[in-house]
Amino acid sequence: MKVSRQKWSSNFSEWFDRVLSEAEIYDYGRYPVKGVGVWMPYGFKIRQNIINLIRRLLDETGHEEVLFPLLVPEDLLRKESEHVKGFEREVFWVTKGGEEELELKLALRPTSEVAITFMESLWLKGYSQLPKKFYQIVSVFRYETKATRPMIRVRELTTFKEAHTVHMTYEEAAKQVEEAVQIYSKFFDTLGIPYLISRRPEWDKFAGAEYTIAFDTLMPDGRALQIGTAHHLGQHFTKAMDYKVTKADNTSDYPHQTSYGISDRVVATVIALHGDDHGPVLPPSIAPVLVVIIPIPAKDEQTQAKLLEFARQINSTLNSAGISSVLDGSDERTPGEKYYYWEMRGVPIRAEIGPRELDNDTVFLKRRDTLEGKSVKRDELVPAIRETLATIQKDLAERAWRDFKERVKRFEDIQGVKKYLSERGGIAEVPWCGSETCGLKVEEEVQARVLGSPLIPNGEGKCVICGRGAKNSLRVAKTY
Amino acid sequence: MKVSRQKWSSNFSEWFDRVLSEAEIYDYGRYPVKGVGVWMPYGFKIRQNIINLIRRLLDETGHEEVLFPLLVPEDLLRKESEHVKGFEREVFWVTKGGEEELELKLALRPTSEVAITFMESLWLKGYSQLPKKFYQIVSVFRYETKATRPMIRVRELTTFKEAHTVHMTYEEAAKQVEEAVQIYSKFFDTLGIPYLISRRPEWDKFAGAEYTIAFDTLMPDGRALQIGTAHHLGQHFTKAMDYKVTKADNTSDYPHQTSYGISDRVVATVIALHGDDHGPVLPPSIAPVLVVIIPIPAKDEQTQAKLLEFARQINSTLNSAGISSVLDGSDERTPGEKYYYWEMRGVPIRAEIGPRELDNDTVFLKRRDTLEGKSVKRDELVPAIRETLATIQKDLAERAWRDFKERVKRFEDIQGVKKYLSERGGIAEVPWCGSETCGLKVEEEVQARVLGSPLIPNGEGKCVICGRGAKNSLRVAKTY
Repeated sequence: MKVSRQKWSSNFSEWFDRVLSEAEIYDYGRYPVKGVGVWMPYGFKIRQNIINLIRRLLDETGHEEVLFPLLVPEDLLRKESEHVKGFEREVFWVTKGGEEELELKLALRPTSEVAITFMESLWLKGYSQLPKKFYQIVSVFRYETKATRPMIRVRELTTFKEAHTVHMTYEEAAKQVEEAVQIYSKFFDTLGIPYLISRRPEWDKFAGAEYTIAFDTLMPDGRALQIGTAHHLGQHFTKAMDYKVTKADNTSDYPHQTSYGISDRVVATVIALHGDDHGPVLPPSIAPVLVVIIPIPAKDEQTQAKLLEFARQINSTLNSAGISSVLDGSDERTPGEKYYYWEMRGVPIRAEIGPRELDNDTVFLKRRDTLEGKSVKRDELVPAIRETLATIQKDLAERAWRDFKERVKRFEDIQGVKKYLSERGGIAEVPWCGSETCGLKVEEEVQARVLGSPLIPNGEGKCVICGRGAKNSLRVAKTY
Repeated sequence: MKVSRQKWSSNFSEWFDRVLSEAEIYDYGRYPVKGVGVWMPYGFKIRQNIINLIRRLLDETGHEEVLFPLLVPEDLLRKESEHVKGFEREVFWVTKGGEEELELKLALRPTSEVAITFMESLWLKGYSQLPKKFYQIVSVFRYETKATRPMIRVRELTTFKEAHTVHMTYEEAAKQVEEAVQIYSKFFDTLGIPYLISRRPEWDKFAGAEYTIAFDTLMPDGRALQIGTAHHLGQHFTKAMDYKVTKADNTSDYPHQTSYGISDRVVATVIALHGDDHGPVLPPSIAPVLVVIIPIPAKDEQTQAKLLEFARQINSTLNSAGISSVLDGSDERTPGEKYYYWEMRGVPIRAEIGPRELDNDTVFLKRRDTLEGKSVKRDELVPAIRETLATIQKDLAERAWRDFKERVKRFEDIQGVKKYLSERGGIAEVPWCGSETCGLKVEEEVQARVLGSPLIPNGEGKCVICGRGAKNSLRVAKTY
């Protein structure tokens, strides 16, 4: 059997919806509130493994986990004017408690900069307490007016990991943004997710930021998806809230801040990018089940009993070795039905055990990603599985990066970009003079969105709009 | 130094507020929304360890974790009429998205019976899929009109673990309630929290339940606190939502349900019950730090350097042994200040290392609960600490149970109850005829609340109100 990625790429949207539902990951569109989903048990485990991964990376780098209230009073949200402008059209408001009208409207947090800055001003008063790095993993809410899509554009983002840091100087905060970029790079690498890191253009930075660095990937349909952002907030919020910190020389000043976030989109991307026509292929780094053991029925009962016992032993060998495995030994489904079921759940390795394996004291291993199989001696099973898992992990990332790189193309003229993005999608890079006018013109001409520019400027070529010498490249794509 | 519990018991409320703030557990009353708190890093870790404990117990017993939306549409919440009556005065309502009025008000979930039943009706259609046990750990919201108190009576309960199960018959659901009671018993036992298990009276059962079983403990001020409940929901919700399941004989029927929950109150109780005048004493089962190592400064620099190196080795020995420890080696605070700091954080064991310990190759261990110290040879340190932790764990539970049992008293007349509850607090048990009239009369007479009755009826004595023969005991207490 050969891997086919026909349906996966040619009708990604349908593929994705079907996988979420059939693999019992995320029930979307049936709960009677628009734009929210339900995490089902299998999906919850995938999500939890991804959360544990980012938690570990953040804990290792001195971030401290906290939990802030969901409700943000209107006056607090309005403290930073740029910020509220960026969000106010999308805020859900609580206006009633029981039968009473509330005196002050309460926002369901769209993000937590103001709430956290408010508490920081009570907690962190002296320079010796800085730098400080907090994070929380919570639901945030956006009253989206655009078309919603499961996990990708929702009204309740259930997996919003937001980090918030405080520093004495602009430079330290800038370094923190670099650390965030490193952490996210490591995180996406562990998930085998390819990305471009861009500095968002001035006209599309976070509301209330000095600048925004963003991670974008490409979905199978060729549209770019923002999967992580890191913002240098400067003194915007601390000034707006009149929050000062005492310095070593006993004077005081507004501290600098950063914030950076990822969301449910990471889960969507892991599922989407490694897929094929059989469903998703979960990277071993986060798969809830690494190996599914499927007994192939024997003709006589005695062999069948031995075979099941063999399968049980294999299962317990794997579990003792710390390899999460499941034995699917029920009689109610045929092996074929079981294959389908576990392929749809993206389990990296299938271990088949039939009469032949019983005779030869072997197990037949099948890789979910390549659909290739091989026979392994029982006493070599654990190392063989470990090696295969490592190979799958590596190969998934390599294939995803290869797909990705093929679709990031440089153009010297706007017509080429237009044609490219409307035909296949992808990300186009063009030379750019650096002016907002020309940047917006690019968006208008190609009917797509500017993602921004590389962090290390590339001054080659001439601006595709005005023809002046380029100051940097501009990346542009159709986006979600 | 002797353990004193004077301040702890005589002014518990002040003690509790001070501990939450000084130990940096939970910032309450400063965030500008009434009745909500902020989990600070140390408190977050305590909370997380408690969550991990209940997660493990639920996973082991076949519960599957899920995540449902926060928002419940008004018409869905109104499906079960008893239920909504019980909650509607306490519901926060979202009525606006951006500038738009929503067509249908959305409730911030006060609990999730209706939301979960709605999805179960889509997921679980045949008897072979039952029983099914879900749980989630989420924030729920109550627009409390009573005085709020940190963790104990809040408007955002951030640590609401709610389990929801579906069964084919009434009896199976009743058995599930028993399982829930067993799980919670184990959970509270691991936390050293004493409790009484009562069947709540008819007039105080969960809104929409057949019956409610509750766990109550006593706070140091003698008031009872409900810390867990399990409800047999019968077919109330499935009938209200017209949710039927196909049975083996191909007919169909409304399934039976249960739900059971615990909240932030568990964290409050762990902190409150094991405290003394120095602060809380965390049970080793959930303490984020088990051992704090404090070097006692030497007079000369050379000894000091050796001493610090010794302390570092001890720290790494403990960490290698899987014992979570912290070395507080900073020069900025005196040992006395450090003692105070870590006692206030309830760390079970303090390991002091000074010139004498260096000379003798020993470590001086001090128990947080008894404040007793002893010298331990370095090569016996790990087993000694393991043993001491186990002893502390056991002793904390025993002391808490002893305190608790002393305050649960049986009375044969209502005057005794009245006097007892108004003087010291505690729980009073009286003989009861079983009638609601007499039950409510007890509440009125003693100005306290009926907790309910033992699960195994105790028919001794005569009803304290009407004098008829008792059918069971009635438990009554001043409550939170």
